[in-house]
Amino acid sequence: MKYCSVCGGAVVLKIPEDDNRERFCCDSCGAIHYENPKVVVGTLPFFENKVLLCKRAIQPRLGLWTLPAGFYENGETLIQGALRETKEETNADVEAGELYGIFNIPQINQVYMIYLAKVGPNDFSVTSESSEIGLFDEQEIPWDILAFPWVNSSLKNFFADLKSGNFILRTEDIIRR
Amino acid sequence: MKYCSVCGGAVVLKIPEDDNRERFCCDSCGAIHYENPKVVVGTLPFFENKVLLCKRAIQPRLGLWTLPAGFYENGETLIQGALRETKEETNADVEAGELYGIFNIPQINQVYMIYLAKVGPNDFSVTSESSEIGLFDEQEIPWDILAFPWVNSSLKNFFADLKSGNFILRTEDIIRR
Repeated sequence: MKYCSVCGGAVVLKIPEDDNRERFCCDSCGAIHYENPKVVVGTLPFFENKVLLCKRAIQPRLGLWTLPAGFYENGETLIQGALRETKEETNADVEAGELYGIFNIPQINQVYMIYLAKVGPNDFSVTSESSEIGLFDEQEIPWDILAFPWVNSSLKNFFADLKSGNFILRTEDIIRR
Repeated sequence: MKYCSVCGGAVVLKIPEDDNRERFCCDSCGAIHYENPKVVVGTLPFFENKVLLCKRAIQPRLGLWTLPAGFYENGETLIQGALRETKEETNADVEAGELYGIFNIPQINQVYMIYLAKVGPNDFSVTSESSEIGLFDEQEIPWDILAFPWVNSSLKNFFADLKSGNFILRTEDIIRR
């Protein structure tokens, strides 16, 4: 950030009065430009013992498999965001369940909130964001070509909980090197 | 937003290619300026059957009582943020417990994540943000002068769960008129 989005003046990085960390501040108009982490919302859609995965048709991780998720947008609740992202990536109208995974990735200022969701056995189709979509049981999951660590963790947790019958919210901090 | 924070050029509100909602876009340098909801993190610190509340020494809602919470910052996990805010407002080093409340306030593009936390009976003191701090049981809570609806809901849930002995994560959508 070099310029003030309010007045177009130059910004400087400094600690504002009554604050304790550096912010981009405009000396011309006095605006303080806060930057905060972004939330990624998504679902783990399942039908019986199978999970819905999408093959990414876009960067990053094009060609790898993921759960439907994307940036949480203004004006929506977390679940509305998770369902919107699921619809955009899979065309599925899933039924949202409980919050199932929280993944902190502080290095990139992101936190992921993933909800369980019920999907019908044929209620999905490819989209501009997903070149293939399908339901996979534990043996069929393409474990070696999953797009992100949080997808791997979510799937491992799901199949473990499927065996125990007890689905619990877990929080994981993902440390990227 | 009127100016591009990257190049200082004028921004226009339009739907970028491969997107489906309006963003502030810079025609000069091509930057797209996304605006997403902010997360507020905090705790419900308790000792036995009492909850720690803070009388706000700052706006908004100066003079009303709240639970310690504030904006989630870059570079931290949700719990780190919740503990930092608790320390800043109460000087207490609490022990973080489970995620206890999620409050969506989509009208103001905020989502609140409140964690249970154990606090010692004397482990707190006033700060620049809180003019009074104290532990309150259900009868002592200043119900009529609580600062925010999410504080009221969190406290009602806590005292109900205290009776049942079963503390469960609840999600609430707070619709402001």
